[in-house]
Amino acid sequence: MNDIKAEKQFLDYVKKMTSYNEAIGLMYWDLRTGAPKKGVEQRSEVIGMLSTEVFKMSTSQEMAAYISKLTPLADSGDLCEVTSKTLSECKKEYDRNKKIPQDEYKEYVILQSKAESIWEDAKAEDNFSLFQPYLEKLVEYNKRFIEYWGYEGNKYNTLLDMYEPGVTVEIIDKVFDQLRESIVPLVQQIAESNNKPNTSFLSQYFPKEAQRKLSLELLERLGYNFDAGRLDETVHPFATGLNPGDVRITTNYDEHDFRTAVFGTIHECGHALYEQNISDKFIGTLLCTGTSMGIHESQSLFYENFVGRNFSFWKKNYELLKEFSTGQFDHVSLNEFYQAINESKPSLIRIEADELTYTLHIMIRYEIEKGLFNGEIEVKDLPEIWNKKYEDYLGIRPESDAKGVLQDVHWSGGSFGYFPSYALGYIYAAQIKQAMLKDIPNFDVLLEEGDLLPVKQWLTEKVHQFGKSKKPLEILQDVTGEGLNAQHLITYLQEKYKNIYKL
Amino acid sequence: MNDIKAEKQFLDYVKKMTSYNEAIGLMYWDLRTGAPKKGVEQRSEVIGMLSTEVFKMSTSQEMAAYISKLTPLADSGDLCEVTSKTLSECKKEYDRNKKIPQDEYKEYVILQSKAESIWEDAKAEDNFSLFQPYLEKLVEYNKRFIEYWGYEGNKYNTLLDMYEPGVTVEIIDKVFDQLRESIVPLVQQIAESNNKPNTSFLSQYFPKEAQRKLSLELLERLGYNFDAGRLDETVHPFATGLNPGDVRITTNYDEHDFRTAVFGTIHECGHALYEQNISDKFIGTLLCTGTSMGIHESQSLFYENFVGRNFSFWKKNYELLKEFSTGQFDHVSLNEFYQAINESKPSLIRIEADELTYTLHIMIRYEIEKGLFNGEIEVKDLPEIWNKKYEDYLGIRPESDAKGVLQDVHWSGGSFGYFPSYALGYIYAAQIKQAMLKDIPNFDVLLEEGDLLPVKQWLTEKVHQFGKSKKPLEILQDVTGEGLNAQHLITYLQEKYKNIYKL
Repeated sequence: MNDIKAEKQFLDYVKKMTSYNEAIGLMYWDLRTGAPKKGVEQRSEVIGMLSTEVFKMSTSQEMAAYISKLTPLADSGDLCEVTSKTLSECKKEYDRNKKIPQDEYKEYVILQSKAESIWEDAKAEDNFSLFQPYLEKLVEYNKRFIEYWGYEGNKYNTLLDMYEPGVTVEIIDKVFDQLRESIVPLVQQIAESNNKPNTSFLSQYFPKEAQRKLSLELLERLGYNFDAGRLDETVHPFATGLNPGDVRITTNYDEHDFRTAVFGTIHECGHALYEQNISDKFIGTLLCTGTSMGIHESQSLFYENFVGRNFSFWKKNYELLKEFSTGQFDHVSLNEFYQAINESKPSLIRIEADELTYTLHIMIRYEIEKGLFNGEIEVKDLPEIWNKKYEDYLGIRPESDAKGVLQDVHWSGGSFGYFPSYALGYIYAAQIKQAMLKDIPNFDVLLEEGDLLPVKQWLTEKVHQFGKSKKPLEILQDVTGEGLNAQHLITYLQEKYKNIYKL
Repeated sequence: MNDIKAEKQFLDYVKKMTSYNEAIGLMYWDLRTGAPKKGVEQRSEVIGMLSTEVFKMSTSQEMAAYISKLTPLADSGDLCEVTSKTLSECKKEYDRNKKIPQDEYKEYVILQSKAESIWEDAKAEDNFSLFQPYLEKLVEYNKRFIEYWGYEGNKYNTLLDMYEPGVTVEIIDKVFDQLRESIVPLVQQIAESNNKPNTSFLSQYFPKEAQRKLSLELLERLGYNFDAGRLDETVHPFATGLNPGDVRITTNYDEHDFRTAVFGTIHECGHALYEQNISDKFIGTLLCTGTSMGIHESQSLFYENFVGRNFSFWKKNYELLKEFSTGQFDHVSLNEFYQAINESKPSLIRIEADELTYTLHIMIRYEIEKGLFNGEIEVKDLPEIWNKKYEDYLGIRPESDAKGVLQDVHWSGGSFGYFPSYALGYIYAAQIKQAMLKDIPNFDVLLEEGDLLPVKQWLTEKVHQFGKSKKPLEILQDVTGEGLNAQHLITYLQEKYKNIYKL
């Protein structure tokens, strides 16, 4: 096999994997948007079969042969960028999967699926002790995996690296400390403020069909390309990029809280714009997706908060909202509306948290995970530690584990190291916004005028087009000229909330 | 490899093929119901990749090994029925695909795709000579394939067998002769009749959304299981069985002809009931689908005509139709309505033909195909032969080839032997109806009462449950106690149309 032939065969091989993944992606989308319930069991088997196939391909002898044949060529610069970076993704996955003894991995997969179902029961019954032995085992397995995989510096780094390559405990500790020091007192000030926004009109009846039409119109205005996507309804909203020409959004309509659909749709639109604008040259490779969970979240949060919760945006779009609503905003001024949708209030549930308090929820989970993997915290103590931290950071204490330590699904599936990316998304977004202002100083004016094209184009040029071909911190450095820096988020939040709550 | 292990591995292997097919089926459904256009090209590649995989599996050395290992066991009755019949399906496909030299097959695939696009142009330009050389080549290739595959009796039998196993030229000639002798004069009598139904109200405005709701309600009444399916909109309606728990229907709404959606939906419902009620024991094998194109069509036509164009059915459902319409039926009696939806009029286009004249369109195509493969007809003479036959059988002559010999897509894709199944579906349906009347003599009363459950249950017991585990003529024999017999269809059509046209 000569080099050129090997490269071509490798790319064909990877393309086959991505084809399977595209089929799997469509089946997931379908399951979550309207597949008939009697077909679900069989469809899940099909998904399982195809997923197994992809896994087998990623760890096959054929893959091993490609890696050993092509790595020297990549190292000597004899492969094009796309092949070389795809190869490095494949190698990373191959190593990760091969380093765990097969039997141990099988046991772990069974444990995961068992633990998820036990977690559901434990949450429903508000009984942490049911879940505790499973969580202990999940942590043990992951500790062993870290040993297999190896680590640099902190053991927890190996888990973080799976979701946010290059971001370490050292980096996160620094920015989270900074954030906490600024946000905790701000949250307290807000709690004591007498200038609370009136929010009574938020929960008035807003018919679903009108919300759907409004969502479609907002997507259009944000620059979402309907020739390369569609909007559907689901229970838990998501965006899914099947390929850059087919990036679908789902949303959920709550007839007594229009914010669910409006901000949910804008959020998913941010994810979708990322996937729609990845360069075509990455199609069929492992690089044709967002580079990390945190950068992905930075794009959704950019649109949700820096655009969607911006006063200028509503200056343009408030009339539109009114047109579709049934009169609930008739006597609400734009200013009152803006303040209401930016209400901040400590809450127990992460997914219901507002822009200001959200990162505090993440810090709590981060500190716990870090403690678990460094042997400083034991699973049995989690409920108490959790509740104490909520009291310290948010000033409220869960009255049950169901609304406390049992609230999130992540740990039950063995996903440790995932949570921090949510907060990193906020930090990245604020840094990116700051950088954007240098090129687009009239950002707010554009929003007022409804001209969002330059914003989308800027993000495409700086972030979207690269897909996974640049690492998260590389993108951040190239776009902003600096590393991770929480100061921009802090400044933004302080200015915004001091203004709203007249602090 | 011991026998039991070999059987299990074979079934797993086949299950993987059916899993790929299910994924492909969903992707096709998605492409035709709302996939964004920019994603189509890439999605088609994914479909192509997965289809190639299934083809490879069906002709692999592994498959050959299963066939040679298990066939003796099947022959000695040592395999269960499901395995044994699945094996025989696999063997049939393996032989068919392996007997054609690989290079020749590749050339043929290229020719097919080229011919389809040329046919589109030829039809648009109304220019048969453009298409003629391609059609000649397609016929030549298929003649050679027949030699490779072998044939018994008439050469054309080999092509017929692909769509309707066991049905030969000898059988078809007999029933088509019978049909032609009865229908041609009946069509002439109708043309001369002075009792033509008033159809002016059929084309009045009927809003799409109302048609959609009506379609949903009709499906419910017919016994379609929405827990195992869904209704969507498309340009060319179809039903697709992904598995028995997920059988989807699509329909098309013409706001100036409600019949398109109403009878289209009922037709597809017939197909869907078949697929929804195949026994679960066939899931994951090649037997989990309708046994032949003709039997499938018999189910859709049974519902479309014997139920949906039945007076008793509308006695029950005419009020429902009126509720959803915008008043166009207010002054139309049930009897007038019934006569209008059963209007019969010779037309040039097959897919627009009515129940009475439809089989004549098929006979013309059948006679031509038979002549082509027996060397009695040459491609260059097709336009003239076609037009002559339309004049003889239907009393009308196409004024253009676009509305004549170029109207159907089938030949351009190399599908010869497919057309007769459409007419066989009519004949089967009438025979099945006759047999049903012995068990359900109060058929019309049930329709009047809207109680369609016994009808569905009877069809499930006699036809649906078996999937592909019984051959078409085996089902026919078991259900009706006889072979193919056109007399029941003739009697039905004569009685019905003599009554409507007062002949």
